[in-house]
Amino acid sequence: MSETGPEVETQEAPADSDNELEGLYGLTDDLVHDIRLAAQEERREDIPSLVADLHAADLADLLEHLGSSDRSVVIQTIGDKLDAEVVSYLDVTVREDVLDLLNTGQLAAVVTELESDDAIDLLEDMDEADQKELLEAMPAGDRVLFEEALAWPEDSAGRLMRREVVAVPAVWTVGETIDYMRSDTELPDDFYYLIVVDPVHQPLGMMPLSRMLRTKRPVLITDIMDEEFRPIPVTMDQEDVAFLFRQYGLIETPVIDESGRLVGVITVDDVVNVIEEEHEEDMMRLAGMGEDDYYSAVVATTRARFSWLLLNLATAILASFVIAMFDAAIEKVVALAILMPIVASMGGNAGTQTLTVTVRALATRELTTSRALRAVVKESMVGLINGILFALVMGAVGWFWFGSPAIGGVLAAAMVLNLLVAGLAGTLIPLALDHWGADPAIASAVFLTTITDVVGFFCFLGLGAWILL
Amino acid sequence: MSETGPEVETQEAPADSDNELEGLYGLTDDLVHDIRLAAQEERREDIPSLVADLHAADLADLLEHLGSSDRSVVIQTIGDKLDAEVVSYLDVTVREDVLDLLNTGQLAAVVTELESDDAIDLLEDMDEADQKELLEAMPAGDRVLFEEALAWPEDSAGRLMRREVVAVPAVWTVGETIDYMRSDTELPDDFYYLIVVDPVHQPLGMMPLSRMLRTKRPVLITDIMDEEFRPIPVTMDQEDVAFLFRQYGLIETPVIDESGRLVGVITVDDVVNVIEEEHEEDMMRLAGMGEDDYYSAVVATTRARFSWLLLNLATAILASFVIAMFDAAIEKVVALAILMPIVASMGGNAGTQTLTVTVRALATRELTTSRALRAVVKESMVGLINGILFALVMGAVGWFWFGSPAIGGVLAAAMVLNLLVAGLAGTLIPLALDHWGADPAIASAVFLTTITDVVGFFCFLGLGAWILL
Repeated sequence: MSETGPEVETQEAPADSDNELEGLYGLTDDLVHDIRLAAQEERREDIPSLVADLHAADLADLLEHLGSSDRSVVIQTIGDKLDAEVVSYLDVTVREDVLDLLNTGQLAAVVTELESDDAIDLLEDMDEADQKELLEAMPAGDRVLFEEALAWPEDSAGRLMRREVVAVPAVWTVGETIDYMRSDTELPDDFYYLIVVDPVHQPLGMMPLSRMLRTKRPVLITDIMDEEFRPIPVTMDQEDVAFLFRQYGLIETPVIDESGRLVGVITVDDVVNVIEEEHEEDMMRLAGMGEDDYYSAVVATTRARFSWLLLNLATAILASFVIAMFDAAIEKVVALAILMPIVASMGGNAGTQTLTVTVRALATRELTTSRALRAVVKESMVGLINGILFALVMGAVGWFWFGSPAIGGVLAAAMVLNLLVAGLAGTLIPLALDHWGADPAIASAVFLTTITDVVGFFCFLGLGAWILL
Repeated sequence: MSETGPEVETQEAPADSDNELEGLYGLTDDLVHDIRLAAQEERREDIPSLVADLHAADLADLLEHLGSSDRSVVIQTIGDKLDAEVVSYLDVTVREDVLDLLNTGQLAAVVTELESDDAIDLLEDMDEADQKELLEAMPAGDRVLFEEALAWPEDSAGRLMRREVVAVPAVWTVGETIDYMRSDTELPDDFYYLIVVDPVHQPLGMMPLSRMLRTKRPVLITDIMDEEFRPIPVTMDQEDVAFLFRQYGLIETPVIDESGRLVGVITVDDVVNVIEEEHEEDMMRLAGMGEDDYYSAVVATTRARFSWLLLNLATAILASFVIAMFDAAIEKVVALAILMPIVASMGGNAGTQTLTVTVRALATRELTTSRALRAVVKESMVGLINGILFALVMGAVGWFWFGSPAIGGVLAAAMVLNLLVAGLAGTLIPLALDHWGADPAIASAVFLTTITDVVGFFCFLGLGAWILL
């Protein structure tokens, strides 16, 4: 644990970080290696014992790490014993591959076995024809349940919630509730709260199990339940759901339909996945990508990135047009060509800093429309002050490098302007996208660098042509 | 909900997204406005009733949104009634301001009231002198507890865990356990599992409360407990802890010391905060920033960003030196100056895509050292193929724009080279940083664009000078 400087912070205990997980994370590199070898050498009989002790999440990781031919060998070997949960842990790209290896009957068995929220997660990513075929292969009762859930908007609380809820009537005592729980074998595996409901099934309160256990049998549950709780409308977007869970440290919360009746519950583990997804989306979009393509094949990755790079190319050519306007100046004063990328680069970097903070603050709801002006003013001031500071630095560099105070002056002026514009664009672009209902992260970086490149080149070369010629 | 194109995905129900949270999120813009007005007009008597119904997390948000003078008015008005939990919800920057407004006695009262994990979170961010003064103002019992926790490494499980655990001996029945829970009033507020321990306090199993409630009184708890659980070493880094919670969908898990004894538990709500922190750190570092500065004042923000931009300036000047090597060529063929930013920009963007995917895969442990080669090969191939595709596009553009097949050819060759280098650098830089124990996100973007700028300019101008002159 050495500090190598104020800005490069080292991680705690870096060297043995992987070792620390040993025994806690089931999938070791050695195990992946052994299984890959067994698959490649067609020693199929060895595979079941190698994967036997893996947790469903670890087996999913294993399938993700294998190449597609090794993967199909492992799937075929496990066959009908493939745990439904494994499929729900898989990355979307890999999951499609795995599902293709199963027949409809196997698939229906997998989906029926899952808890309703995991099953929906799996169903919603399938194309319509596959989805229909699969639903038809299911028992009628399950089918109706899934069709109902799929009728909720994509990314809504309705898709995220578990339908199996433990609801108890408000008239019961602690003792009656415990007796009911001991007798009913159909309850879900894990739950942390009971939901107390009125006769028309509207939630009245949440009952933490720990409090139930600590209260004597004759006490009425309405006397000890939490009356302050946050019932989530079934149509609420999952980002808002995640916000509420984070904001109030929720573990489990009821979901209600438009008439206020209890239709399901959402638990924090599903929300953790949403948070991860939203993070990933923000990061990838800021980098000019549609989605994370770590598990995509080379061709699919190349194609997806190509379209983003093509967009960037269009903006780069636009910037080149601006430069071409001043070709005469460049031919006479070649220093302009040498220095112009500095102005554009500084603007792009300062703008990216502002953009990232703004996108993040919008995602966490720290920044809302009513606070937008404050953010724009602050970032403009930061841009202006840093612009002035770097103008001083760069003015000096330009002067001494080319022995011309005029070149230094032009560089300084362009720097102030471009860093101010970077602060403005870095806040206004995501705010505008958000205002118009688009994801603030999407294409923001492309818009931003277009502006800082065009403004940077135009100011610097324009001032250069005007003053130096 | 309109689809504006394949790449610009609109959010679900954007227009009423804020309205959906109404009634669920306590802090409305109107309320912030009213409180700000009351503070500014010195109507202090109005403030307590305005904030009375706010959840601690919402009151924290309010304090974050107010300017520092309004904030101190609100704090003074609430005074000793300030809920300790509010402080624990505050952003670090704002928290320092708020703590400065309290005297040591008030502060000690706040910290003592918190659960141990929240108290540590607050203590560890204070400077040493303040921390010492505060610890001395506390009751001796609490002080020892906190000093113990602060002795664990920063960002370790020991700092994250709650010391208050509900542990029960393995010899008990369900009935005996329930009786104990009903009689002990010192148990923590919320917990979801009991930890079953042996006589030397080593955990033997986890007992979900839902299962306790569903089992008859005479059953031994060892017969129904989960024997598969993941005890976390107290020194484990919080990133690893977060990984295990995500991987296995954990809600609560025991923490053990080096002799295997139970010393605390970690619950998922604390881990959600860690996930948020780690994610924020990755995003900010990829954008060339030390940390999120949304709540920092203009001067602090400017200063922090200045040092990052200065690093970028140094690399931009380096790129300018490369351009300056070819000033003679530029004077003769000004098209080189016009086109050179395209090569650099495409390399920078392609490299950023690769870099982001790689940093993300390292953070989620999808990418480990043993899988590094695969990632490098894939990204190089993606870079090479996209390089060839864009070489064709740009070759044609260069040819027709300047009527010179030679310029088109030079542009095409530089594009292939720079996109290949971008794929290599985008994977190798974060892998190298990770290998040396540094955060793969830190300064990666600066290194990357230095390489793509230098290589881009050098290849394009070098080839141009060689072929065109």
